[in-house]
Amino acid sequence: MFRPGLDKLPVYGVEEQDWRIKVDANESNRNLPPLVAERVEGRLSYVAFNRYPDIAMTELREEIGRGSGYDIDNVWLGNGSSEILEKLFFLYGGVGRSIVFSVPSFSMYAIYAKISESTAVPVPLEADYTLDKEKILRAAEEHDAKLIVLCNPNNPTGTAIPLTVVEDIVRRAKCPVVVDEAYMEFYGETALPLVAQYPNLIVARTFSKAYGAAGIRAGYVIANEEVIAMLRKVSMPYHINKLTLTVAETIFQMRDEFIPYIQQTIIERERMAAFIETETDITVYPSSTNFLLLKVEGAGELAKYLASIGIAVRSFANAPMLENCIRITIGTTAENDEIMSAIKRWCKGAK
Amino acid sequence: MFRPGLDKLPVYGVEEQDWRIKVDANESNRNLPPLVAERVEGRLSYVAFNRYPDIAMTELREEIGRGSGYDIDNVWLGNGSSEILEKLFFLYGGVGRSIVFSVPSFSMYAIYAKISESTAVPVPLEADYTLDKEKILRAAEEHDAKLIVLCNPNNPTGTAIPLTVVEDIVRRAKCPVVVDEAYMEFYGETALPLVAQYPNLIVARTFSKAYGAAGIRAGYVIANEEVIAMLRKVSMPYHINKLTLTVAETIFQMRDEFIPYIQQTIIERERMAAFIETETDITVYPSSTNFLLLKVEGAGELAKYLASIGIAVRSFANAPMLENCIRITIGTTAENDEIMSAIKRWCKGAK
Repeated sequence: MFRPGLDKLPVYGVEEQDWRIKVDANESNRNLPPLVAERVEGRLSYVAFNRYPDIAMTELREEIGRGSGYDIDNVWLGNGSSEILEKLFFLYGGVGRSIVFSVPSFSMYAIYAKISESTAVPVPLEADYTLDKEKILRAAEEHDAKLIVLCNPNNPTGTAIPLTVVEDIVRRAKCPVVVDEAYMEFYGETALPLVAQYPNLIVARTFSKAYGAAGIRAGYVIANEEVIAMLRKVSMPYHINKLTLTVAETIFQMRDEFIPYIQQTIIERERMAAFIETETDITVYPSSTNFLLLKVEGAGELAKYLASIGIAVRSFANAPMLENCIRITIGTTAENDEIMSAIKRWCKGAK
Repeated sequence: MFRPGLDKLPVYGVEEQDWRIKVDANESNRNLPPLVAERVEGRLSYVAFNRYPDIAMTELREEIGRGSGYDIDNVWLGNGSSEILEKLFFLYGGVGRSIVFSVPSFSMYAIYAKISESTAVPVPLEADYTLDKEKILRAAEEHDAKLIVLCNPNNPTGTAIPLTVVEDIVRRAKCPVVVDEAYMEFYGETALPLVAQYPNLIVARTFSKAYGAAGIRAGYVIANEEVIAMLRKVSMPYHINKLTLTVAETIFQMRDEFIPYIQQTIIERERMAAFIETETDITVYPSSTNFLLLKVEGAGELAKYLASIGIAVRSFANAPMLENCIRITIGTTAENDEIMSAIKRWCKGAK
């Protein structure tokens, strides 16, 4: 009775539990900076709950456009960048239409491909999780791809694609290329300025990671006017609620307040990577994000050990191409200290 | 380059303007009741913005289930009931699959049919905007419908389907039947208790109308577990943000606070209907909602006159089957007084 083909759709599972240290979802482990929190609280107290939100989301789109060097007509918003990606898969996909993306990457790409009834063309990364642009372009060519998705830097591997490589893919691709820059702020290189030059480039961003607002579900996309006009058509009226709009606007206006957190996260990431590499036999992949991917024999056991002392990490122990890997979000300095000690203890035989 | 068939998709247009009296979108014209507003403000100040919302939305679903006589597994949430309808059209629709609904009704049904690539089977209401159940059932049979959508009471006509008729359609239909009860609280009859009896019955509700929270975009659906499980699969992870969850939870817990507003809206609706019928030649359709549909020669002119004095109404002047109709939301008593005077003035020749 349901639309055919949906029965094997997996559920995106998340274990809910009260953790002492939660470093499993690449969230910021700090709430909003005090100045931002104060302004958010003030603005939320003036919301007219009874009125629909601004359907065109004019203020926030203008603000983001201005801040990114583009016009309001180059900006659209989603309930997280997830919704933007879902809509892009829908817009460019469909029965018999292929979408190319790397694996391993954000697991939702495969689900969005399935929901949009598109043909997913997963292209494996190299053994060190770097991307070979020729493989991507060849797969796109062979499958007559309607869309290429690049996650840069990549989740869950942490690896980044140099901007020159992104540009080369965009220039040579015969279809639109989405660059999912969810973790960009921890990397520093963005394809955003290239949107002016390449009408087939679409850049997605989120408030969930560097801007510490996973709870509000806000993301945005910068692309040429034609793409934005179509996204608008397939978005529900009033799809972004007023509270999210209000908070996202405040955060975007005050985004400089987040720079210290971003910088500290990068410093902590390098500190943790150096410690684990020096003090243990665990492989640490170079990360341009707010998390580290570790490879270690018995990764599942390590994750269980950490869970047993109240630390939640993301285990990929049995996932294809991620065997024996766990992903750990960079927490606060105190949390990271505790995590490092625990990992060292486990390596020395603690169970 | 886009998925074929989307080019003619209309944009759900809304004119944004600063109105003195806004009675065009069936919102509540009062913000949250003071006790609710206070509790909402208090709870919002404790939100951990940095953390993803509860992916299973356990608390609110349990609360709604308990309040409705069902289990958490019978409840799912959407960004407004719009998102629920969009997902239901997707789940049951698809290429070559028909969805039956009445016209005129909520204009998004046709758009959701188009986006889900389904075949829309619009069934005209009678001349007085009542529904002939045999026509619905016959259309469903003839087109081998995969879904029937009933809007009860119906937007924008205000007319209601007696519960016995709804039940008869559900009992005899060979496919699922969604009852969109967005305006139910102003009517009083609900199909909700029938869900226990009929596995093909799906009831959609919203926080946008009687609960005065159009700004938060929250709606819910009550149906059998299998339907809810599929809705869950095709919803994005974390699709409802934390702020919306928090406010919706508070409103649902304190829903008795809204009863006076609902009762007053009904009283005001009857007062306005009686006035317009007595004092003018305008046809007023019987309404079971928070709005009135009026039919009058020169409806477009009346809407323009009202706009010229700062009153926004919804004009359907040129819409099929709604020729010469305007829809006016019930406002506050003072607003309604002003609207009635203005209508009377216009009828007497004011321009």
